[in-house]
Amino acid sequence: MVASVQMSTLGLARAPLLADLSQDRLNDLAGRCTWRRFEPGQAIVSRNATGGEVHLIVDGRVRIHVYAADGREVLFTHVQEGGIVGDFAAVDGGPRTTDAHASSRVLSASLRAPDFRTLLREEPRVEERYVRYLLGLVRSLTDRVIELSTLGVQNRIRSEVLRLARGTSNGSNSAQIMPAPRHADLAAQVGTTREQVTRELSSLARQGLLEKDGSGMLVTDLRRLEELACGSGGRA
Amino acid sequence: MVASVQMSTLGLARAPLLADLSQDRLNDLAGRCTWRRFEPGQAIVSRNATGGEVHLIVDGRVRIHVYAADGREVLFTHVQEGGIVGDFAAVDGGPRTTDAHASSRVLSASLRAPDFRTLLREEPRVEERYVRYLLGLVRSLTDRVIELSTLGVQNRIRSEVLRLARGTSNGSNSAQIMPAPRHADLAAQVGTTREQVTRELSSLARQGLLEKDGSGMLVTDLRRLEELACGSGGRA
Repeated sequence: MVASVQMSTLGLARAPLLADLSQDRLNDLAGRCTWRRFEPGQAIVSRNATGGEVHLIVDGRVRIHVYAADGREVLFTHVQEGGIVGDFAAVDGGPRTTDAHASSRVLSASLRAPDFRTLLREEPRVEERYVRYLLGLVRSLTDRVIELSTLGVQNRIRSEVLRLARGTSNGSNSAQIMPAPRHADLAAQVGTTREQVTRELSSLARQGLLEKDGSGMLVTDLRRLEELACGSGGRA
Repeated sequence: MVASVQMSTLGLARAPLLADLSQDRLNDLAGRCTWRRFEPGQAIVSRNATGGEVHLIVDGRVRIHVYAADGREVLFTHVQEGGIVGDFAAVDGGPRTTDAHASSRVLSASLRAPDFRTLLREEPRVEERYVRYLLGLVRSLTDRVIELSTLGVQNRIRSEVLRLARGTSNGSNSAQIMPAPRHADLAAQVGTTREQVTRELSSLARQGLLEKDGSGMLVTDLRRLEELACGSGGRA
């Protein structure tokens, strides 16, 4: 589906990576984009595929994940409106690192790999933001390797809940996570089973640390949860 | 220790990140570097410290790793001559992600953070190489998260031996890893104990897949090892 250049320009201008670009550059990019729609569950990119486009997510939500040979899912993140999908292969020409599936209806403005590389080369502020985005990925993946290598499954679940809570915290000692994370997603994020997540969250609720709060989850005592996450909880 | 600008320029010119820079730029960089020596075991950067320098490793070998609260080591990589250490914090101003210790006597040319950021901004080819280097890190950390989340400890050990062997393979079905990896390093790389590594390598040797070869390790059948690494081997 190809939209008018004007519509496309408005969609692109909202992406943080493209902030402050000149109107000329935005118009040029818009003319190079192909607008694509994906239905929920549809593949946007596939692990180990080569080449291809960078998708700028204009609307909807994309699940970045991998299924292992045994069917176990490893969840990396959800990319929201304004984020990008498929950039690694476009920049270095290597294979796709993960699968990406639409979690909702998705509208993307898709750029061919050479056009994305030209954008980085010709717009220093975009490249600088892209470097910071890659550094953010390296930092969070490094922390995840450390947690997977050294923490037991209980403490990995506690650490992940803590991270989600801190992302929404207003500085007080409690935080509401909205919507509440799905148990299967937490499991795919920390490398365990859904059953183990359900067991640990029930245990935290019995200790008064978690409460159901409409469609959200209230963490009542962030400091106590942090103490627990750093403390005992055997490897599994 | 401060060396002459001429010595410093020669050291810098050998770093892949700085390949093809003009003599003027190399001279300017050399004038901004402080040469530092580190003794084996000495800390070069420390996890969670802030600010600071980027170390260009001119001679020696640096261990990039973290010790968890329980004393367990997580090993990320060894940086060799020509590589850089401490760049993440210099570029985005965040805390250090890992510890870095000298594994041998190390000589570094150290740049202040603002000078490293200026280099990236003013030398597009350096920034392009830096982006590819970060993408390489993102790719290998992603694979490591997938392995830690989905493979049992036996298969993680087999996969790591396979990766080391492939790095030295000449295209045939056997490969010599030189020097043989230390069991403690393999353990710190795949998130297990030294004892478990010793047990699994002995088992592979009994199956005729590994042979001691002077100070190296000979992998006799890469295809068979790959089949094993993808096959059974319970999670631990």
